[in-house]
Amino acid sequence: MNVLGLIVEYNPFHNGHLYHLKESVKKTNANVVIAVMSGNFLQRGEPSIISKWKRTEMALLNGVDLVIELPYVFATQKAETFANGAVSILDALHCDSLCFGSESGEINPFLQTTQFLLQHQIEYDELIKKHVQTGVSFPKALTLAFQELAGDQEILDLSLPNNILGFHYVSAIYKQKSKIKPYTVKRSSAGYHDETFTSPTIASATSIRKTLFSSESEELKIRNYVPPETLERINKYKSENTLLHNWESYFQYLKYSILTMSKEEIQSIYEVEEGLENRILKFIIQSTSFHELMEKLKSKRYTWTRLQRVCTHILTNTTKQEMKDITELSPYIRLLGMTEKGQKYLNSIKKDVPIPLISKVSSFQHPLLDIDIRASYTYNMIFQEPNRSLRLQDEYTTPPIRILRK
Amino acid sequence: MNVLGLIVEYNPFHNGHLYHLKESVKKTNANVVIAVMSGNFLQRGEPSIISKWKRTEMALLNGVDLVIELPYVFATQKAETFANGAVSILDALHCDSLCFGSESGEINPFLQTTQFLLQHQIEYDELIKKHVQTGVSFPKALTLAFQELAGDQEILDLSLPNNILGFHYVSAIYKQKSKIKPYTVKRSSAGYHDETFTSPTIASATSIRKTLFSSESEELKIRNYVPPETLERINKYKSENTLLHNWESYFQYLKYSILTMSKEEIQSIYEVEEGLENRILKFIIQSTSFHELMEKLKSKRYTWTRLQRVCTHILTNTTKQEMKDITELSPYIRLLGMTEKGQKYLNSIKKDVPIPLISKVSSFQHPLLDIDIRASYTYNMIFQEPNRSLRLQDEYTTPPIRILRK
Repeated sequence: MNVLGLIVEYNPFHNGHLYHLKESVKKTNANVVIAVMSGNFLQRGEPSIISKWKRTEMALLNGVDLVIELPYVFATQKAETFANGAVSILDALHCDSLCFGSESGEINPFLQTTQFLLQHQIEYDELIKKHVQTGVSFPKALTLAFQELAGDQEILDLSLPNNILGFHYVSAIYKQKSKIKPYTVKRSSAGYHDETFTSPTIASATSIRKTLFSSESEELKIRNYVPPETLERINKYKSENTLLHNWESYFQYLKYSILTMSKEEIQSIYEVEEGLENRILKFIIQSTSFHELMEKLKSKRYTWTRLQRVCTHILTNTTKQEMKDITELSPYIRLLGMTEKGQKYLNSIKKDVPIPLISKVSSFQHPLLDIDIRASYTYNMIFQEPNRSLRLQDEYTTPPIRILRK
Repeated sequence: MNVLGLIVEYNPFHNGHLYHLKESVKKTNANVVIAVMSGNFLQRGEPSIISKWKRTEMALLNGVDLVIELPYVFATQKAETFANGAVSILDALHCDSLCFGSESGEINPFLQTTQFLLQHQIEYDELIKKHVQTGVSFPKALTLAFQELAGDQEILDLSLPNNILGFHYVSAIYKQKSKIKPYTVKRSSAGYHDETFTSPTIASATSIRKTLFSSESEELKIRNYVPPETLERINKYKSENTLLHNWESYFQYLKYSILTMSKEEIQSIYEVEEGLENRILKFIIQSTSFHELMEKLKSKRYTWTRLQRVCTHILTNTTKQEMKDITELSPYIRLLGMTEKGQKYLNSIKKDVPIPLISKVSSFQHPLLDIDIRASYTYNMIFQEPNRSLRLQDEYTTPPIRILRK
């Protein structure tokens, strides 16, 4: 048995993801594929365009055998924490390999960079601190610190989002002393943030989402860039629920939340630091959209992503107190879906899985799982009744999705 | 100068209110009328059908000279606290008289009952406690305690809502050693909770609201029961905002609020006692409407009104901590509107008003005023942007309404 782990968001699952999946299987000779996937809120602090259940179906129909939810407390975080949580789940599920996308497709720079930095951890941390204090953003500080430390050596470009994630995946494997072997596959054409279609079959998730939120006729345009299962599910979701999710759909709740919180309550929210509560309170009343609020809030100090994460934590009422005890490793594994093959694999290892494996939320209790459930409640608030109530109850009653794959 | 004080909600202002106003002026020979009015949330724990600003206009156009907002911390409370806050404002504004509606129109039973109970305060409180412990509702316990204490004496029927309020107004006047002289006017036909129209010109506010939320054609029906200024304002409000306010319009925010709060946070909300948080958490997910939630929550122990107040406090995030320091007397007087005569009167006494008189919210700070502002923000959340933002800003910028009355 050769088990491949992937760390994904699939927002939504597109041809680039399919390409990565197939190449990764080829490269690692895998016969089982496990994906750890962010739930309804994503690493960049946004709601997913379509629910985690639909994204699970997309994954299972396109080659993944097991989909595990990355808990909220890892999923909506900076790359390091995100990677720690995800790798710990793949490790607990006895994955042999992890394969991530990168700009170059070469694994060696990742291995060397990680080893180099682990050897110089203390100096590196100090340099980061120094650069942060000059007022630059955190990602920028990482790059500057790294350049200063590594000098002339050939180094990984940590300003590219996929490289940062890959670097932290490899770091997490080393730090957790996992037996997982890291691989990387060169990313296909489209850049992470590309907003236009430049290739005939591969487009970034960003450009696909943008198209989905534009006029209806534009929907046809994405047909070339996603597998049929993705298009089908998106269309069904839209017809059932009349909407796809983006930050604007949640803005009224965010605004309500902020306006009914005291300043101390906003300060108590995770990641609200350095007087950010004052800026939020100053700008929220006059902002008529999420985009307008973000434009007002952003500055050299606060990146768009960091601010989106803060807004996500306000929206889900996730406090510093709750995050105080977060560990590097996930305390549970929540199964979202599986194929027959995935189920067989799970049965074969389940006695050796060191942390609880959750099929039904109602049968397990954990403070971090409470946050996942709350995040799901929040995600479903934008539906109309009685649809809303049904979906809220789903969170407790939906068993993992089972797909019989041809 | 003969100054009459009234304590009102005007939700909305109707012919019964107009009748009471005119009779009160006649009875007290008043030449200035001051109304202390609940803001956007009312004594029974509901949003007002139309904003406090529009209700202020209705009052000023129909004979009131000054409208003062009863702060949220008094307005959304049981009769005793409501009365204490309102009377303290009328007293600070040097009212000579207070005239309230009652079933009999006789003031003596109120005076006697109040005096009797003040003399037997300790026994009365003990009897109330005893009856509450048997599991009956608070209003019921008041009546039983009173009956037990008063024995054969002719006593006021405290099971009638208007009598309870009147009793507490008179009590507050006595306790605050105010010079205000209490009067009462017999209520005209419609009972407090009547839901149907039984008189040709007078209907309860309840039946008028019910009609306004039914089909559009029914609107014509209320024409006979409200002054033209009321109908005009309601129609204008509906055409500008596409809605009138009731609990159902806020249900999505209430549900979101509850589902993103921890059990401890719900416990910290004012008036959430005796494990009510468990019932709320148990029923909220499956409830598809406010009415459905209330039907599930209500019991012998929790009256509808008490539960509505609890929901209001959850909605506005008003905590026990914030209410800890509430005093019997209002710490400020917030002016919502005035006629020329009202303004003249205010100028004549303003040097002798013992507490701050607020025309603009932005020029005064007080923790209780923060709650009023938050309640107004909450009230305006149900509008669409950009209307919502404009109304939120109004709370800071709207000066008191000035009406030149013919």
